[in-house]
Amino acid sequence: MARTVDVAELVDRAREGQPRAVARLISLVEDASPQLREVAGALAPFCGNAQVIGLTGAPGVGKSTSTSALVAAYRRRGKRVGVLAVDPSSPFSGGALLGDRVRMGEHATDPGVFIRSMATRGHLGGLSWATPQALRVLDAAGCDVVLVETVGVGQSEVEVVSLADTTVVLLAPGMGDGIQAAKAGILEIADVFVVNKADRDGADQTARDLKHMISLGRREREGGRWRPPVVKAVAFRAEGLDEVVDAIDAHHAWLADRGELERRRATRAAGEIEAIALERLRSRIGGLRGASALETLAKRVVAGDLDPYAAADRLVEGVGHDDAGGDRHR
Amino acid sequence: MARTVDVAELVDRAREGQPRAVARLISLVEDASPQLREVAGALAPFCGNAQVIGLTGAPGVGKSTSTSALVAAYRRRGKRVGVLAVDPSSPFSGGALLGDRVRMGEHATDPGVFIRSMATRGHLGGLSWATPQALRVLDAAGCDVVLVETVGVGQSEVEVVSLADTTVVLLAPGMGDGIQAAKAGILEIADVFVVNKADRDGADQTARDLKHMISLGRREREGGRWRPPVVKAVAFRAEGLDEVVDAIDAHHAWLADRGELERRRATRAAGEIEAIALERLRSRIGGLRGASALETLAKRVVAGDLDPYAAADRLVEGVGHDDAGGDRHR
Repeated sequence: MARTVDVAELVDRAREGQPRAVARLISLVEDASPQLREVAGALAPFCGNAQVIGLTGAPGVGKSTSTSALVAAYRRRGKRVGVLAVDPSSPFSGGALLGDRVRMGEHATDPGVFIRSMATRGHLGGLSWATPQALRVLDAAGCDVVLVETVGVGQSEVEVVSLADTTVVLLAPGMGDGIQAAKAGILEIADVFVVNKADRDGADQTARDLKHMISLGRREREGGRWRPPVVKAVAFRAEGLDEVVDAIDAHHAWLADRGELERRRATRAAGEIEAIALERLRSRIGGLRGASALETLAKRVVAGDLDPYAAADRLVEGVGHDDAGGDRHR
Repeated sequence: MARTVDVAELVDRAREGQPRAVARLISLVEDASPQLREVAGALAPFCGNAQVIGLTGAPGVGKSTSTSALVAAYRRRGKRVGVLAVDPSSPFSGGALLGDRVRMGEHATDPGVFIRSMATRGHLGGLSWATPQALRVLDAAGCDVVLVETVGVGQSEVEVVSLADTTVVLLAPGMGDGIQAAKAGILEIADVFVVNKADRDGADQTARDLKHMISLGRREREGGRWRPPVVKAVAFRAEGLDEVVDAIDAHHAWLADRGELERRRATRAAGEIEAIALERLRSRIGGLRGASALETLAKRVVAGDLDPYAAADRLVEGVGHDDAGGDRHR
């Protein structure tokens, strides 16, 4: 267990923009430090100012390059920017292992940029629960904008939506047509589409397909909904990123006008509370698991003399009556 | 609430191979019927015979076509086959809405094949909890092989691994090189790689890249691990599928020889029990949510006068002391 730190002082230093204090706070959060709750309590009064932007897209669309170029675009507008990169921590690829400075070299020495890679593997539910807490650290530290970058298409994208004010979905020509986009379930989650690598063949077609799918979708829905714009960009040449920022800002203003921003943030907080509550209940089950109860029950299920529901009954018995367990810090 | 059915009779009929009985049992499971636990109990003695195969890969690799061709390959070997297709239920794409018969026309009238599409959206954790239960229905109904097909790359793939005896990862030329595969986190989960669309340019390169990544990865790991074979196929022409089945069977035999099959299945059962237990605890939180406690807490977190951990404390209070709630059937 790490030594006790002066949380109030750490939060003060983070709010002054000291990168090491920000990094330390995120580590306390990510490692589920015994001081996690103290940290959360100290951050609370300073949260709620950051604009939260989710960036997602399939591997190969140029997500890291786009994130980096988007950071530069925000910096040109004088914004302080935080980046949370949620990568699968593969033993092969870099992911969180590559380190944050290596990942986005050009911003490494910019005091107005905080970059943090978060590991996802091993945590139930991908983004939950450390990412929202890391986001609160960056928010309290005075970031005007926090970009949350996720890899792949799947569960984590759905979670990005619940975190972000605005979700940006990246595509690239040749990654599949509109039907494939629909199959991947990205049409429902995007507030802004970016067709990256727009200098390549097929970029116009991809943009047209997307717009067509968007208009088809709108017919099936109630009116008064946001129509996601489709922006073309060439991230590695830093082209089109100002248009992306404009589209994000337009969506943000649209949300704010309708009171939808407040609703999204309340929904995000509710999800966060629920995730923490579930994690706590889960760790109580884990306590029983430590007594090898779960393994014994699992063997009986495999043998066919118990069904999983009856086994779950036995596992849940007693949970909730133990409020003094080792789960105080989650 | 649906009328009460004679579960014992339904299980008998499913075991005789009546498709409607199988479909009905899966519906009871998927809809969290009041009779769900009765169903689970009735199935338990007949479970544990099916070989469970996970199929996954990014959108566009030809997953549905490959699944269909793989079903045909197993049918040629006289196996009864179940298919669980876990699709995001998009309002645009078909997903579960398209219906099962439309999805795989050629097998629709084959009494040795059961096909079922499952929706994933709205369930916490994607595949959990209905898919494992549907798998138990197909297992008890006498399927020799159950294929679990998932869409996209992400959380659901990790879950497929915990369900499957053998996980098959599909790729296609031009979908990205070995580095992209590593980024997507698929190298760790694959027991068998299939390079589909192998008649296209770049198929040999994709296969070579994969083999190279696999050999790199092995050096970093302990010895005695399974080395995933790379099989080339052209699914829409039904080419290469017998080789895929052979590779799957070789892996299955390898697992069985080492007692690893039993361990995988015990781990699967443990995950299933835990998911049910968590779902139950979650619905208790939901009960409190119904009283709008969560919404109130969320607004206080957004306003900054409460942190999420303190809010979760208040939410968890009382959970576990209410064993007579409306969560009996999960």
